[in-house]
Amino acid sequence: MENDKELIYKLSEEYDNGADAKIIEPELKKLLEPYKDGSIGLAQINPIAGDIEYNAAKVVKYIKHAENIGLDLVVFPELILMGYPIEDTIDRHPVIVEENVKWLKEIAKITTKTTAIVGFVEPRKYDNLTGKKYYNSAAVLQNGKITGIIRKSLLPTYSEFNDYRYIEPSPVVGSQCADTLGCFSEEKIENCTKTNLISGKKYAISICEDCWNNKEFFNDTTLYSLDPIEELSKEKPDVFINCSASPTRAKKEQLKHNMLSFIAKKYSTPIIYVNQVGAIDNSSFDGSSRVFDKDGKLLARAKSFKEQFIIVNPHKNLGKIYPLTKGLEQTLTEAKVYTLEYEPDLERTYKTIIQGIRDYFIKTGFKRAVLGLSGGLDSTVCAVLLADAIGAENVFGISMPSKITSKESKTDAELLAANLGINFTEASIKDMVETTNNCLQSLFKTVESKWDCRYKQSFTMDNIQARSRAIFLWGISNEFGSCLPIATSDKSELYMGYATINGDMSGGFAPIADVPKTKLFALARWLNKNRKVKNAIPEAIILKKPGAELAIDPKTGKPLIAEDALMPYEFLDEIIWRIENKKEHYYDMMNSEFLYEKKNSISQEQKQQWLDKFYRRMSTALYKWSILPPSVIVDSRSINKYDYKQPITSSRINYKGLTENEIRDKIMLLKH
Amino acid sequence: MENDKELIYKLSEEYDNGADAKIIEPELKKLLEPYKDGSIGLAQINPIAGDIEYNAAKVVKYIKHAENIGLDLVVFPELILMGYPIEDTIDRHPVIVEENVKWLKEIAKITTKTTAIVGFVEPRKYDNLTGKKYYNSAAVLQNGKITGIIRKSLLPTYSEFNDYRYIEPSPVVGSQCADTLGCFSEEKIENCTKTNLISGKKYAISICEDCWNNKEFFNDTTLYSLDPIEELSKEKPDVFINCSASPTRAKKEQLKHNMLSFIAKKYSTPIIYVNQVGAIDNSSFDGSSRVFDKDGKLLARAKSFKEQFIIVNPHKNLGKIYPLTKGLEQTLTEAKVYTLEYEPDLERTYKTIIQGIRDYFIKTGFKRAVLGLSGGLDSTVCAVLLADAIGAENVFGISMPSKITSKESKTDAELLAANLGINFTEASIKDMVETTNNCLQSLFKTVESKWDCRYKQSFTMDNIQARSRAIFLWGISNEFGSCLPIATSDKSELYMGYATINGDMSGGFAPIADVPKTKLFALARWLNKNRKVKNAIPEAIILKKPGAELAIDPKTGKPLIAEDALMPYEFLDEIIWRIENKKEHYYDMMNSEFLYEKKNSISQEQKQQWLDKFYRRMSTALYKWSILPPSVIVDSRSINKYDYKQPITSSRINYKGLTENEIRDKIMLLKH
Repeated sequence: MENDKELIYKLSEEYDNGADAKIIEPELKKLLEPYKDGSIGLAQINPIAGDIEYNAAKVVKYIKHAENIGLDLVVFPELILMGYPIEDTIDRHPVIVEENVKWLKEIAKITTKTTAIVGFVEPRKYDNLTGKKYYNSAAVLQNGKITGIIRKSLLPTYSEFNDYRYIEPSPVVGSQCADTLGCFSEEKIENCTKTNLISGKKYAISICEDCWNNKEFFNDTTLYSLDPIEELSKEKPDVFINCSASPTRAKKEQLKHNMLSFIAKKYSTPIIYVNQVGAIDNSSFDGSSRVFDKDGKLLARAKSFKEQFIIVNPHKNLGKIYPLTKGLEQTLTEAKVYTLEYEPDLERTYKTIIQGIRDYFIKTGFKRAVLGLSGGLDSTVCAVLLADAIGAENVFGISMPSKITSKESKTDAELLAANLGINFTEASIKDMVETTNNCLQSLFKTVESKWDCRYKQSFTMDNIQARSRAIFLWGISNEFGSCLPIATSDKSELYMGYATINGDMSGGFAPIADVPKTKLFALARWLNKNRKVKNAIPEAIILKKPGAELAIDPKTGKPLIAEDALMPYEFLDEIIWRIENKKEHYYDMMNSEFLYEKKNSISQEQKQQWLDKFYRRMSTALYKWSILPPSVIVDSRSINKYDYKQPITSSRINYKGLTENEIRDKIMLLKH
Repeated sequence: MENDKELIYKLSEEYDNGADAKIIEPELKKLLEPYKDGSIGLAQINPIAGDIEYNAAKVVKYIKHAENIGLDLVVFPELILMGYPIEDTIDRHPVIVEENVKWLKEIAKITTKTTAIVGFVEPRKYDNLTGKKYYNSAAVLQNGKITGIIRKSLLPTYSEFNDYRYIEPSPVVGSQCADTLGCFSEEKIENCTKTNLISGKKYAISICEDCWNNKEFFNDTTLYSLDPIEELSKEKPDVFINCSASPTRAKKEQLKHNMLSFIAKKYSTPIIYVNQVGAIDNSSFDGSSRVFDKDGKLLARAKSFKEQFIIVNPHKNLGKIYPLTKGLEQTLTEAKVYTLEYEPDLERTYKTIIQGIRDYFIKTGFKRAVLGLSGGLDSTVCAVLLADAIGAENVFGISMPSKITSKESKTDAELLAANLGINFTEASIKDMVETTNNCLQSLFKTVESKWDCRYKQSFTMDNIQARSRAIFLWGISNEFGSCLPIATSDKSELYMGYATINGDMSGGFAPIADVPKTKLFALARWLNKNRKVKNAIPEAIILKKPGAELAIDPKTGKPLIAEDALMPYEFLDEIIWRIENKKEHYYDMMNSEFLYEKKNSISQEQKQQWLDKFYRRMSTALYKWSILPPSVIVDSRSINKYDYKQPITSSRINYKGLTENEIRDKIMLLKH
């Protein structure tokens, strides 16, 4: 019996890996005979936003497969025909909604015994319309027909989610019938109960956010008043099904795991959770679809960051548990305390970014990447990630020394490239910088004759170097096919605006824009330990103190160290973490001890000076965040513009706040 | 009597212009004596997002003024203490919400006889919270106390609006009392009716979107089921008040005017609409606060695009009607038909952009602008707008000729600068382009030895020119205080991706990114006619066919003309208009006649070729839209990333769609 199960998992993996379906499917069908009643296929798919033909082809493939091996049911992720998120595209180009409906209707016609649950954008009736134009729906397809429609009730509008822009929340939960349906109102819908009867079992279907509102689990602090799962539980279903498109973010795994388990246990009902995989722009979906049995015990889990079709039967204990990314299990019970021990999140971080890069390249049609290799940590980690995401042969690293660049930086970069097997060359920017500088000095003199505001000290020379390098990279991108330049800025430096516009922060993609510097160090060490080729990153690069090598520190006569210009990265990253995760303000931080302070003795004046610098620099960095290239969201919170929105003109915010007394005094002054 | 009214308006304007309040206020008070009962001040303010002290100071000033001249009531725009929009800032930095509450409480204490209605972000009770953390509220301040709170019920989440991200919709309309209030639950709230009794009159107060949902006016097609105004009308108020922050957009004026008039007439109740003025990032608010009497007749209207305090009494026919921007009246009844007659919208367009530039500069602390002057239309119009927005002396135009640049382009640019009185100089990019090119040619050879994908023809040389110019501009920005480079891309070219990354589309602000080329021509002529200095734009610039002067057309031996590379602008702009305003798709456009076709005979093949090119180029331009600098939204629809969101990876969308038969055939192929 257990051997048969193992064989089922094995054959299923072979199918995923492209083995001949004609050989595998009959074998699988036979092996599945004892598990037939209540058998379900979870089709964990990587769609392309708006490419309905591409997505539909995958849906057809897996419906056919499920039928060929005799499953009762095959479940697809949320909005699978359209891809999630699709955003405003469905409003401006309604032709794609029309097309997704056409595909759905035609796909319904080819279904036979196996039922399919397929997500799509459903247009609502147009006459006397109240509300938004569309529902986020899933259709139940059986025996050539659409036999029920489920519509999402809870519409997230936080972080990267904008569901409520064009989607109307469904006032009722569960499956609905013909006369309430927009585009299907002419057709006969047979199943009119809230749950769907499929081969003798009652399924209660919901969509993504609909299962994230359990009042008990969230300690009575929930975003919505309606709890669709609670409502559906009254129908006494045999199984809950949730079609999802839930991107991975730090710490979210813990919540998701415990919540799904809690729901299954609370209602004594197994839950099937089918998640989208792959990246769409800034959002990276981890898959990891899963099944909890009626006691809340994990019964099955699909792979993370891989397309997969997994077969389960929650009533007959069929289903394999694939591991989460390494270390993540450990975080499932972990409290949200700031720590510099990034270890448990590093494999997830790595795979999230790798998938983000790969899918951005594949889905936009790019193949090659070119980046500057400075011998510093940022470009180094970017190069490793790129090599792993799109193949070393498709990456070109360019060392672009200026007169400030040290010999070590050049050799470190070259050694890294050799270790990775990426293409490498050196191209000096000296001539360019010199010519530019000559042109600019005379231009500056002219401007100075009219404008009395020339800085005594400026970053002009630093920036000319960074921008000259970007000209090289964009030049290669213009000259060679399907080639994208890479922006290498990291999260800590973006917070500080320590990145050059049209320089290092310019590119077609920014792989590490959501990774703070201290985590980057940890990631570099992790990469050296865990990649096939060990220690690809020269130790010298990791040991070196970060600095842009754009200017000489007059005090030392050596290139300026970033921590001297900013503050210690450990301190900086803790500020960022406290603001993003605990919403602390200036005085919260002044009045509590930083991890950095436990290890280093610093004065209150020093701390205050760093905090002042942080807020001053952050408030003027808002513009840079607004023009940052696409980048994968990795952390629990980010500055990605599609995740976090702050007006650039809000730079005068008083992040310290005023006391009542100060306010009273100010009002008295205003009154007189 | 009429003379007295005129005197009131005149003194009020003098107050706005900074005349001594101590002299004006007693005079005004005396003149207002006969209009006392039901007199209202509309404080049309330009706030700074998140700068609560700055905004509160204005609120205090106008409350004091209203009291000094004996008004019953002073009304402020939506969220005036915080500024609208504030977006995610209130979530990440809750300290500013705490501060806006403190200010509100202290301001309440200074009120005496005159009642004030002041918008603010209201934290909700935290225990067992269901829903979002905040309300978008307005407080009624009377005799030193908060006597009522009104909360917004309808939360827009379309276009530039994101209210629902952190704001909970109020389930009830009208004024509410103590025990329902979050941060004021400890305090005694005296007024517990839905309407507020102020000096013997019943006021029904609502916030912005709450008055935009009349089912009759919108032909039964509304976004929300609740109509707060309908609910409030049941209380038989004497006056409706709406506190608003409504940005100006093409064609919106028509809707707003007719809707407010309709509501007043329908309920036989005057309506007071107080709108925010000024720009916050991409949104430009026009002010134009207004009053309709109980017959729906316009009784008063504040200035457009100006801070103003206007005094009205809807019961005693007191209130001046300031004009809308010229031509706009004419559009109030106009149908939404595509036309190249931009005339009625040009003054509004001009003022919207001017305000957008000025407020972006003022609120971020910038003073000066530097831009490349190519002698072409885009940079020319930008220069005029900048000169008018921030002062000619603060603008530096740089002619940066390459070897392709014609002599005319240089002299046109110089003449323009002289006419405008802006600073001007010439700085050749020849040396830079040559040096860069030399460096790149050898770099390209190296890359070519590894990558077999070098283009036979590329845009590399074109782009090096554009990027060299941007290096000059950003260099000046780095070297001189408070100086911002300007991105000169226009809407038509951005749609086509006909703009260089790190080149002409790079800058700190993009003034004309929402103005299509044909409208730019009209705007140029309008500027020549309507500015104080007539004909500042040399006729040669307007007559010249647009082209980037980055490459030579091999066919003509002359610089490439943009329309030859793209398509006629008249045709291109009509495609954009049809997609944005009518949501047409490919075949809609193939099957209907363009305005361009009425004047020019073109073949179906030619039309198809242009449409194909349009969709092909647009789908690969999505990335460029995502890194565009802040720009004012002007049109009814735009590609501004804070207004329109489309995944970059959705570039494979089939904008033509497939027919049922084509889909059926594809499914049959997939099945076998």
